[in-house]
Amino acid sequence: MSDPIDFYFDFASPYGYFASLRIDALAAAHGRSVTWRPILLGAIFKVTGMKPNLEQPLRGEYLTHDVGRIARLTGAPFIFPDSAPVNGVAASRAFYWLTDAHPEQAKLLARALYHAHFGEGRNIGPADVVAEIAEQTLGSLGYDRSAVLAALGDQTVKDRLRGETEQAVARGVFGSPFVLVDEEPFWGWDRLDMLDRWLSSGGW
Amino acid sequence: MSDPIDFYFDFASPYGYFASLRIDALAAAHGRSVTWRPILLGAIFKVTGMKPNLEQPLRGEYLTHDVGRIARLTGAPFIFPDSAPVNGVAASRAFYWLTDAHPEQAKLLARALYHAHFGEGRNIGPADVVAEIAEQTLGSLGYDRSAVLAALGDQTVKDRLRGETEQAVARGVFGSPFVLVDEEPFWGWDRLDMLDRWLSSGGW
Repeated sequence: MSDPIDFYFDFASPYGYFASLRIDALAAAHGRSVTWRPILLGAIFKVTGMKPNLEQPLRGEYLTHDVGRIARLTGAPFIFPDSAPVNGVAASRAFYWLTDAHPEQAKLLARALYHAHFGEGRNIGPADVVAEIAEQTLGSLGYDRSAVLAALGDQTVKDRLRGETEQAVARGVFGSPFVLVDEEPFWGWDRLDMLDRWLSSGGW
Repeated sequence: MSDPIDFYFDFASPYGYFASLRIDALAAAHGRSVTWRPILLGAIFKVTGMKPNLEQPLRGEYLTHDVGRIARLTGAPFIFPDSAPVNGVAASRAFYWLTDAHPEQAKLLARALYHAHFGEGRNIGPADVVAEIAEQTLGSLGYDRSAVLAALGDQTVKDRLRGETEQAVARGVFGSPFVLVDEEPFWGWDRLDMLDRWLSSGGW
Protein backbone atom coordinates (compact mmCIF):
# COMPACT_ATOMS: atom_id res chain seq x y z
CA MET A 1 0.00 0.00 0.00
CA SER A 2 1.24 3.48 -0.85
CA ASP A 3 2.04 6.09 1.76
CA PRO A 4 -0.84 7.94 3.40
CA ILE A 5 -1.71 11.31 1.92
CA ASP A 6 -1.50 14.36 4.16
CA PHE A 7 -4.62 16.45 4.67
CA TYR A 8 -3.82 19.87 6.12
CA PHE A 9 -6.68 22.06 7.30
CA ASP A 10 -7.60 24.81 9.72
CA PHE A 11 -10.72 24.35 11.83
CA ALA A 12 -11.66 27.91 10.86
CA SER A 13 -11.73 27.03 7.15
CA PRO A 14 -15.11 26.22 5.59
CA TYR A 15 -13.37 24.83 2.52
CA GLY A 16 -11.41 22.54 4.83
CA TYR A 17 -14.74 21.41 6.29
CA PHE A 18 -16.15 20.56 2.87
CA ALA A 19 -12.93 18.72 2.00
CA SER A 20 -13.06 16.78 5.29
CA LEU A 21 -16.39 15.29 4.22
CA ARG A 22 -14.85 13.77 1.09
CA ILE A 23 -11.12 13.24 1.53
CA ASP A 24 -11.09 9.79 3.16
CA ALA A 25 -13.49 8.21 0.68
CA LEU A 26 -11.64 9.82 -2.22
CA ALA A 27 -8.30 8.45 -1.01
CA ALA A 28 -9.71 5.02 -0.12
CA ALA A 29 -10.95 4.59 -3.69
CA HIS A 30 -7.28 4.62 -4.68
CA GLY A 31 -6.07 2.41 -1.83
CA ARG A 32 -4.73 5.36 0.16
CA SER A 33 -5.29 6.33 3.76
CA VAL A 34 -5.29 9.93 4.96
CA THR A 35 -3.30 11.55 7.76
CA TRP A 36 -5.25 14.53 9.08
CA ARG A 37 -3.13 17.48 10.16
CA PRO A 38 -4.93 20.52 11.61
CA ILE A 39 -2.82 23.65 11.46
CA LEU A 40 -3.12 27.33 12.37
CA LEU A 41 -3.33 29.47 9.27
CA GLY A 42 -2.88 32.57 11.40
CA ALA A 43 0.71 31.51 12.09
CA ILE A 44 1.27 30.67 8.42
CA PHE A 45 -0.12 34.02 7.28
CA LYS A 46 2.66 35.67 9.30
CA VAL A 47 5.10 33.95 6.94
CA THR A 48 3.20 34.61 3.73
CA GLY A 49 1.74 38.02 4.47
CA MET A 50 -1.75 36.79 3.56
CA LYS A 51 -4.91 37.61 5.49
CA PRO A 52 -7.97 35.47 6.31
CA ASN A 53 -10.21 35.38 3.23
CA LEU A 54 -13.14 36.66 5.27
CA GLU A 55 -11.24 39.83 6.13
CA GLN A 56 -10.37 40.66 2.53
CA PRO A 57 -12.70 43.13 0.81
CA LEU A 58 -14.70 41.51 -2.02
CA ARG A 59 -13.14 38.11 -1.39
CA GLY A 60 -14.82 37.86 1.99
CA GLU A 61 -18.23 38.52 0.44
CA TYR A 62 -17.51 36.01 -2.30
CA LEU A 63 -16.59 33.37 0.28
CA THR A 64 -19.77 33.96 2.27
CA HIS A 65 -21.85 33.45 -0.86
CA ASP A 66 -19.72 30.60 -2.19
CA VAL A 67 -19.82 28.34 0.86
CA GLY A 68 -23.61 28.35 0.90
CA ARG A 69 -23.57 27.40 -2.78
CA ILE A 70 -21.16 24.52 -2.12
CA ALA A 71 -23.29 23.30 0.77
CA ARG A 72 -26.38 23.22 -1.45
CA LEU A 73 -24.46 21.47 -4.23
CA THR A 74 -22.93 18.79 -2.02
CA GLY A 75 -25.74 18.41 0.49
CA ALA A 76 -23.37 19.14 3.38
CA PRO A 77 -25.02 20.42 6.58
CA PHE A 78 -24.05 24.08 6.81
CA ILE A 79 -24.76 27.08 9.00
CA PHE A 80 -22.40 30.00 8.64
CA PRO A 81 -21.06 30.49 12.18
CA ASP A 82 -21.32 33.92 13.79
CA SER A 83 -17.94 33.14 15.34
CA ALA A 84 -16.12 32.87 11.97
CA PRO A 85 -13.20 32.98 11.62
CA VAL A 86 -12.93 30.89 14.77
CA ASN A 87 -9.73 30.34 16.73
CA GLY A 88 -8.84 26.69 16.09
CA VAL A 89 -6.16 26.34 18.75
CA ALA A 90 -8.18 24.30 21.26
CA ALA A 91 -9.76 22.09 18.59
CA SER A 92 -6.38 21.41 16.98
CA ARG A 93 -4.72 20.62 20.29
CA ALA A 94 -7.47 18.19 21.21
CA PHE A 95 -6.86 16.40 17.93
CA TYR A 96 -3.09 16.09 18.42
CA TRP A 97 -3.48 15.04 22.04
CA LEU A 98 -5.34 11.99 20.76
CA THR A 99 -3.98 11.15 17.33
CA ASP A 100 -0.89 9.04 18.09
CA ALA A 101 -2.63 6.67 20.51
CA HIS A 102 -6.08 6.73 18.92
CA PRO A 103 -5.89 7.96 15.32
CA GLU A 104 -9.42 6.91 14.34
CA GLN A 105 -10.97 8.54 17.39
CA ALA A 106 -8.95 11.66 16.72
CA LYS A 107 -10.50 11.84 13.24
CA LEU A 108 -13.91 11.20 14.73
CA LEU A 109 -13.34 14.10 17.09
CA ALA A 110 -12.16 16.36 14.26
CA ARG A 111 -15.30 15.51 12.30
CA ALA A 112 -17.46 16.21 15.34
CA LEU A 113 -15.75 19.57 15.88
CA TYR A 114 -16.05 20.55 12.22
CA HIS A 115 -19.70 19.49 12.23
CA ALA A 116 -20.45 21.48 15.36
CA HIS A 117 -18.84 24.56 13.84
CA PHE A 118 -19.97 24.54 10.22
CA GLY A 119 -22.81 22.03 10.34
CA GLU A 120 -24.49 23.58 13.40
CA GLY A 121 -22.92 27.04 13.54
CA ARG A 122 -21.50 26.58 17.05
CA ASN A 123 -18.47 28.49 18.29
CA ILE A 124 -15.77 25.84 18.82
CA GLY A 125 -13.16 28.36 19.92
CA PRO A 126 -13.59 28.05 23.71
CA ALA A 127 -11.75 25.19 25.39
CA ASP A 128 -14.82 24.13 27.34
CA VAL A 129 -16.85 23.73 24.15
CA VAL A 130 -14.09 21.56 22.69
CA ALA A 131 -13.98 19.57 25.92
CA GLU A 132 -17.74 19.07 25.89
CA ILE A 133 -17.72 17.83 22.29
CA ALA A 134 -14.71 15.62 23.03
CA GLU A 135 -16.43 14.09 26.04
CA GLN A 136 -19.49 13.26 23.95
CA THR A 137 -17.43 11.86 21.10
CA LEU A 138 -14.82 9.98 23.10
CA GLY A 139 -17.01 8.55 25.81
CA SER A 140 -16.00 5.04 24.87
CA LEU A 141 -12.36 5.85 25.65
CA GLY A 142 -13.27 6.90 29.14
CA TYR A 143 -12.09 10.50 28.83
CA ASP A 144 -14.15 13.08 30.61
CA ARG A 145 -14.20 16.83 30.16
CA SER A 146 -11.56 17.54 32.81
CA ALA A 147 -9.06 15.17 31.16
CA VAL A 148 -9.55 17.00 27.88
CA LEU A 149 -9.16 20.41 29.49
CA ALA A 150 -5.93 19.27 31.13
CA ALA A 151 -4.63 17.96 27.80
CA LEU A 152 -5.32 21.30 26.10
CA GLY A 153 -2.86 22.96 28.46
CA ASP A 154 -0.22 20.24 28.16
CA GLN A 155 3.10 21.56 26.88
CA THR A 156 3.74 18.49 24.72
CA VAL A 157 0.40 18.99 23.00
CA LYS A 158 1.06 22.71 22.51
CA ASP A 159 4.47 21.95 21.03
CA ARG A 160 3.01 19.34 18.73
CA LEU A 161 0.58 21.81 17.15
CA ARG A 162 3.31 24.41 16.79
CA GLY A 163 5.63 21.82 15.23
CA GLU A 164 2.98 20.56 12.81
CA THR A 165 2.28 24.12 11.67
CA GLU A 166 6.00 24.82 11.20
CA GLN A 167 6.43 21.59 9.28
CA ALA A 168 3.48 22.52 7.09
CA VAL A 169 5.19 25.78 6.15
CA ALA A 170 8.42 23.89 5.42
CA ARG A 171 6.44 21.68 3.04
CA GLY A 172 4.89 24.66 1.26
CA VAL A 173 1.43 24.66 2.83
CA PHE A 174 -0.12 28.15 2.72
CA GLY A 175 -3.88 27.56 2.81
CA SER A 176 -6.70 25.21 3.79
CA PRO A 177 -7.45 22.60 2.68
CA PHE A 178 -4.03 21.60 1.40
CA VAL A 179 -3.30 18.01 0.40
CA LEU A 180 0.13 16.49 -0.20
CA VAL A 181 0.35 13.24 -2.16
CA ASP A 182 3.97 12.07 -2.10
CA GLU A 183 4.81 15.81 -1.81
CA GLU A 184 2.64 16.76 -4.81
CA PRO A 185 0.59 19.73 -3.55
CA PHE A 186 -3.13 20.40 -4.08
CA TRP A 187 -4.57 23.58 -2.61
CA GLY A 188 -8.27 24.13 -2.20
CA TRP A 189 -11.56 22.28 -2.04
CA ASP A 190 -11.93 22.96 -5.76
CA ARG A 191 -8.92 20.80 -6.52
CA LEU A 192 -10.28 17.54 -5.12
CA ASP A 193 -11.32 16.40 -8.59
CA MET A 194 -7.79 17.05 -9.86
CA LEU A 195 -6.42 15.15 -6.85
CA ASP A 196 -8.74 12.29 -7.78
CA ARG A 197 -7.34 12.27 -11.33
CA TRP A 198 -3.80 12.42 -10.00
CA LEU A 199 -4.38 9.40 -7.77
CA SER A 200 -6.03 7.53 -10.66
CA SER A 201 -3.27 8.16 -13.12
CA GLY A 202 -0.22 8.27 -10.88
CA GLY A 203 0.44 11.84 -12.00
CA TRP A 204 1.14 13.48 -15.32
CA MET B 1 -31.01 33.59 -26.07
CA SER B 2 -29.80 34.39 -22.56
CA ASP B 3 -27.50 37.28 -21.75
CA PRO B 4 -23.78 36.90 -22.48
CA ILE B 5 -21.63 35.85 -19.57
CA ASP B 6 -18.81 38.16 -18.50
CA PHE B 7 -15.27 36.83 -18.53
CA TYR B 8 -12.91 39.03 -16.50
CA PHE B 9 -9.18 38.37 -16.73
CA ASP B 10 -5.79 40.01 -16.41
CA PHE B 11 -3.27 39.39 -19.19
CA ALA B 12 -0.73 38.70 -16.45
CA SER B 13 -2.78 35.79 -15.10
CA PRO B 14 -1.85 32.28 -16.22
CA TYR B 15 -5.13 30.95 -14.84
CA GLY B 16 -6.90 33.54 -16.96
CA TYR B 17 -4.97 32.19 -19.95
CA PHE B 18 -6.06 28.62 -19.28
CA ALA B 19 -9.65 29.79 -18.82
CA SER B 20 -9.51 31.76 -22.09
CA LEU B 21 -8.85 28.52 -23.96
CA ARG B 22 -12.10 26.98 -22.72
CA ILE B 23 -14.60 29.67 -21.82
CA ASP B 24 -16.22 30.29 -25.21
CA ALA B 25 -16.79 26.61 -25.98
CA LEU B 26 -18.09 26.01 -22.47
CA ALA B 27 -20.59 28.86 -22.76
CA ALA B 28 -21.60 27.97 -26.32
CA ALA B 29 -22.57 24.48 -25.19
CA HIS B 30 -25.26 26.19 -23.12
CA GLY B 31 -26.31 28.68 -25.79
CA ARG B 32 -24.40 31.54 -24.19
CA SER B 33 -21.92 33.96 -25.68
CA VAL B 34 -19.03 35.47 -23.72
CA THR B 35 -18.07 39.11 -23.26
CA TRP B 36 -14.33 39.31 -22.60
CA ARG B 37 -13.25 42.00 -20.16
CA PRO B 38 -9.53 42.39 -19.49
CA ILE B 39 -8.83 44.24 -16.25
CA LEU B 40 -5.85 45.33 -14.20
CA LEU B 41 -5.57 43.31 -11.01
CA GLY B 42 -2.92 45.72 -9.76
CA ALA B 43 -5.60 48.39 -9.44
CA ILE B 44 -8.01 45.96 -7.81
CA PHE B 45 -5.38 44.79 -5.30
CA LYS B 46 -5.21 48.39 -4.06
CA VAL B 47 -8.84 47.97 -3.02
CA THR B 48 -8.53 44.48 -1.55
CA GLY B 49 -5.04 44.65 -0.07
CA MET B 50 -4.05 41.48 -1.92
CA LYS B 51 -0.72 40.94 -3.68
CA PRO B 52 0.09 39.15 -6.94
CA ASN B 53 0.20 35.41 -6.23
CA LEU B 54 3.70 35.18 -7.63
CA GLU B 55 4.97 37.61 -5.02
CA GLN B 56 3.50 35.71 -2.07
CA PRO B 57 5.89 33.34 -0.29
CA LEU B 58 4.91 29.66 -0.73
CA ARG B 59 1.94 30.56 -2.92
CA GLY B 60 4.23 31.87 -5.65
CA GLU B 61 6.15 28.60 -5.71
CA TYR B 62 2.91 26.64 -5.75
CA LEU B 63 1.65 28.68 -8.70
CA THR B 64 4.84 28.13 -10.68
CA HIS B 65 4.52 24.38 -10.20
CA ASP B 66 0.76 24.31 -10.66
CA VAL B 67 0.58 26.08 -14.01
CA GLY B 68 2.99 23.59 -15.59
CA ARG B 69 0.83 20.77 -14.25
CA ILE B 70 -2.33 22.35 -15.71
CA ALA B 71 -0.61 22.84 -19.07
CA ARG B 72 0.35 19.15 -19.18
CA LEU B 73 -3.15 18.09 -18.15
CA THR B 74 -4.98 20.25 -20.68
CA GLY B 75 -2.45 20.17 -23.49
CA ALA B 76 -2.25 23.96 -23.55
CA PRO B 77 0.95 25.42 -25.05
CA PHE B 78 2.86 26.86 -22.12
CA ILE B 79 6.19 28.51 -21.42
CA PHE B 80 6.50 30.32 -18.12
CA PRO B 81 7.42 33.88 -19.15
CA ASP B 82 10.53 35.48 -17.65
CA SER B 83 8.52 38.70 -17.69
CA ALA B 84 5.82 37.40 -15.29
CA PRO B 85 3.91 39.09 -13.80
CA VAL B 86 3.66 41.21 -16.95
CA ASN B 87 2.08 44.66 -17.10
CA GLY B 88 -1.14 44.14 -19.06
CA VAL B 89 -1.99 47.79 -19.67
CA ALA B 90 -1.02 47.94 -23.35
CA ALA B 91 -2.58 44.55 -24.15
CA SER B 92 -5.82 45.50 -22.38
CA ARG B 93 -6.03 48.88 -24.07
CA ALA B 94 -5.52 47.29 -27.49
CA PHE B 95 -8.45 45.00 -26.76
CA TYR B 96 -10.83 47.79 -25.69
CA TRP B 97 -9.80 49.99 -28.60
CA LEU B 98 -11.17 47.30 -30.91
CA THR B 99 -13.96 45.55 -29.08
CA ASP B 100 -16.99 47.78 -29.77
CA ALA B 101 -16.48 47.98 -33.53
CA HIS B 102 -14.94 44.53 -34.04
CA PRO B 103 -15.72 42.26 -31.09
CA GLU B 104 -14.62 39.03 -32.77
CA GLN B 105 -11.31 40.51 -33.90
CA ALA B 106 -10.78 41.90 -30.40
CA LYS B 107 -11.12 38.37 -29.01
CA LEU B 108 -8.77 37.10 -31.71
CA LEU B 109 -6.25 39.70 -30.63
CA ALA B 110 -6.66 38.82 -26.96
CA ARG B 111 -6.07 35.16 -27.78
CA ALA B 112 -2.97 36.06 -29.82
CA LEU B 113 -1.61 38.18 -26.96
CA TYR B 114 -2.27 35.49 -24.36
CA HIS B 115 -0.69 32.88 -26.64
CA ALA B 116 2.39 35.03 -27.23
CA HIS B 117 2.80 35.52 -23.48
CA PHE B 118 2.00 32.13 -21.97
CA GLY B 119 2.18 29.90 -25.05
CA GLU B 120 5.52 31.28 -26.26
CA GLY B 121 6.86 33.02 -23.18
CA ARG B 122 7.11 36.45 -24.85
CA ASN B 123 6.98 39.70 -22.91
CA ILE B 124 3.75 41.39 -24.02
CA GLY B 125 4.24 44.36 -21.73
CA PRO B 126 5.84 46.79 -24.18
CA ALA B 127 3.50 48.74 -26.44
CA ASP B 128 5.56 47.93 -29.55
CA VAL B 129 5.21 44.19 -28.91
CA VAL B 130 1.45 44.57 -28.57
CA ALA B 131 1.40 46.67 -31.74
CA GLU B 132 3.40 44.07 -33.63
CA ILE B 133 1.10 41.24 -32.56
CA ALA B 134 -1.96 43.38 -33.34
CA GLU B 135 -0.64 44.18 -36.82
CA GLN B 136 -0.13 40.48 -37.53
CA THR B 137 -3.53 39.50 -36.13
CA LEU B 138 -5.58 42.37 -37.54
CA GLY B 139 -4.03 42.63 -40.97
CA SER B 140 -7.38 42.02 -42.62
CA LEU B 141 -8.81 45.14 -40.95
CA GLY B 142 -6.09 47.28 -42.47
CA TYR B 143 -4.58 48.45 -39.17
CA ASP B 144 -0.84 48.83 -39.13
CA ARG B 145 1.48 49.12 -36.17
CA SER B 146 1.37 52.90 -35.99
CA ALA B 147 -2.44 52.97 -35.81
CA VAL B 148 -2.28 50.56 -32.87
CA LEU B 149 0.38 52.60 -31.09
CA ALA B 150 -1.72 55.74 -31.53
CA ALA B 151 -4.76 53.93 -30.10
CA LEU B 152 -2.81 52.83 -27.02
CA GLY B 153 -2.30 56.47 -26.11
CA ASP B 154 -5.88 57.53 -26.83
CA GLN B 155 -7.63 59.01 -23.81
CA THR B 156 -10.94 57.31 -24.61
CA VAL B 157 -9.20 53.94 -24.66
CA LYS B 158 -7.37 54.67 -21.41
CA ASP B 159 -10.62 55.71 -19.76
CA ARG B 160 -12.37 52.61 -20.99
CA LEU B 161 -9.86 50.30 -19.33
CA ARG B 162 -9.99 52.29 -16.10
CA GLY B 163 -13.80 52.26 -16.19
CA GLU B 164 -13.97 48.52 -16.87
CA THR B 165 -11.65 47.84 -13.94
CA GLU B 166 -13.71 50.09 -11.65
CA GLN B 167 -16.90 48.41 -12.78
CA ALA B 168 -15.32 45.00 -12.10
CA VAL B 169 -14.64 46.03 -8.50
CA ALA B 170 -18.20 47.31 -8.17
CA ARG B 171 -19.40 43.87 -9.30
CA GLY B 172 -17.20 42.06 -6.77
CA VAL B 173 -14.36 40.94 -9.05
CA PHE B 174 -11.14 40.43 -7.08
CA GLY B 175 -9.12 37.91 -9.11
CA SER B 176 -8.52 36.36 -12.51
CA PRO B 177 -10.23 34.58 -14.12
CA PHE B 178 -13.57 35.73 -12.73
CA VAL B 179 -16.82 34.87 -14.51
CA LEU B 180 -20.21 36.44 -13.89
CA VAL B 181 -23.31 34.59 -15.08
CA ASP B 182 -26.33 36.82 -14.49
CA GLU B 183 -24.27 38.26 -11.58
CA GLU B 184 -23.51 34.79 -10.13
CA PRO B 185 -19.73 34.86 -9.50
CA PHE B 186 -17.18 32.13 -10.25
CA TRP B 187 -13.57 32.80 -9.33
CA GLY B 188 -10.71 30.75 -10.67
CA TRP B 189 -9.82 28.36 -13.45
CA ASP B 190 -10.66 25.53 -11.08
CA ARG B 191 -14.30 26.60 -10.99
CA LEU B 192 -15.01 26.14 -14.69
CA ASP B 193 -16.54 22.72 -14.05
CA MET B 194 -18.84 24.25 -11.44
CA LEU B 195 -19.73 27.01 -13.90
CA ASP B 196 -20.55 24.30 -16.44
CA ARG B 197 -22.90 22.64 -13.93
CA TRP B 198 -24.46 25.98 -13.09
CA LEU B 199 -25.19 26.69 -16.75
CA SER B 200 -26.58 23.16 -17.22
CA SER B 201 -28.91 23.32 -14.27
CA GLY B 202 -29.81 26.98 -14.15
CA GLY B 203 -28.33 27.23 -10.68
CA TRP B 204 -29.03 25.58 -7.37
